[in-house]
Amino acid sequence: MAPLAQGEGSLNRLIQVVGRLPGLGPRSARRLVLHLLKRRETAFTPLLAALTLVAETVQTCELCGNLDSQNPCALCRDPKRANGIVCVVEDVDDLWAVERTGAFAGRYHVLGGLLSALDGVGPEDLGLDRLQRTVANDGVSEVVLALSATVDGQTTAHTVHDTLRGSGVAVTRLAHGVPMGGDLDYLDDSTLGQAFRGRCAI
Amino acid sequence: MAPLAQGEGSLNRLIQVVGRLPGLGPRSARRLVLHLLKRRETAFTPLLAALTLVAETVQTCELCGNLDSQNPCALCRDPKRANGIVCVVEDVDDLWAVERTGAFAGRYHVLGGLLSALDGVGPEDLGLDRLQRTVANDGVSEVVLALSATVDGQTTAHTVHDTLRGSGVAVTRLAHGVPMGGDLDYLDDSTLGQAFRGRCAI
Repeated sequence: MAPLAQGEGSLNRLIQVVGRLPGLGPRSARRLVLHLLKRRETAFTPLLAALTLVAETVQTCELCGNLDSQNPCALCRDPKRANGIVCVVEDVDDLWAVERTGAFAGRYHVLGGLLSALDGVGPEDLGLDRLQRTVANDGVSEVVLALSATVDGQTTAHTVHDTLRGSGVAVTRLAHGVPMGGDLDYLDDSTLGQAFRGRCAI
Repeated sequence: MAPLAQGEGSLNRLIQVVGRLPGLGPRSARRLVLHLLKRRETAFTPLLAALTLVAETVQTCELCGNLDSQNPCALCRDPKRANGIVCVVEDVDDLWAVERTGAFAGRYHVLGGLLSALDGVGPEDLGLDRLQRTVANDGVSEVVLALSATVDGQTTAHTVHDTLRGSGVAVTRLAHGVPMGGDLDYLDDSTLGQAFRGRCAI
């Protein structure tokens, strides 16, 4: 039989671990764990099975940095996507976001972060040598920088651009402008200015 | 080797399962899963281990309805807590909340819900027969109703009180009043009225 305090111990441990996840705290962790324990068959078992499967199978693709159960990943292995365009994203969730749009059918390069002097992230941490090799060897004609329009994002974009200078590849960035469904009145001046300067024929 | 789409499949499945948990949605589920995959050793492995341990060990106590790795639970097995007072709570998180106060050292009865005509929860679902047996057989002198001050909570409190009528046990409820740190100005009239009527000597 388990020692006297183990039950509370293992529950407390789980609540602690869950409470450290992003967006969760002690209170929501308690609520979540209780939810799982009240719904063993419909919530706990599926969660445990899905987590175990992902822990066992999912790994980082050595070519692009995507997460997949195979290495190289399904996107890198898809011969239809070898079309000479590489999209540079900060992280895997940005890759997922671009994929959801259906607007892009090329390869990816996941940086795994942005340049940040504060966080000690330098150019050598972003796999830019790997990107250079891909551009040099795989007949890449365009690199799209799909990075956040923040200071760190734009610094990183400049560095990637500098790295690729001289390789003959076209380096592009996402368009700035009015978000779909966005109200001009509520838009910041900088975005509206960019949208105005980037106006195009209807 | 896994079929071509399995990687994305198992990740998507995990994101779906996580996104159905209380307080989470598709966006926060993606963020959470990515957080886990980026921190395999410090977040993913501990979470999986803690979940597996809880899934294997934690069960509902047959005496009080608490969750613990042993049955009867540590609280019901503690001879120091057999002091003739039973605290009735709606759910295990309320039991945890009362335990955190350190103000109570008796036994518990977890109802597992509140009476609710809308949700089809009747008296037979709350284990009131078990409570009656405990009161009759275990020398219980007081039953504290620690239930929410909501309509369903008060309806349930009345029903539990009715169930115990004639058993000779004293039935009490939590005090209503000004919350600690509460500003009178912001307090609702009903709470302030209750606090005024329940005033006591300093």
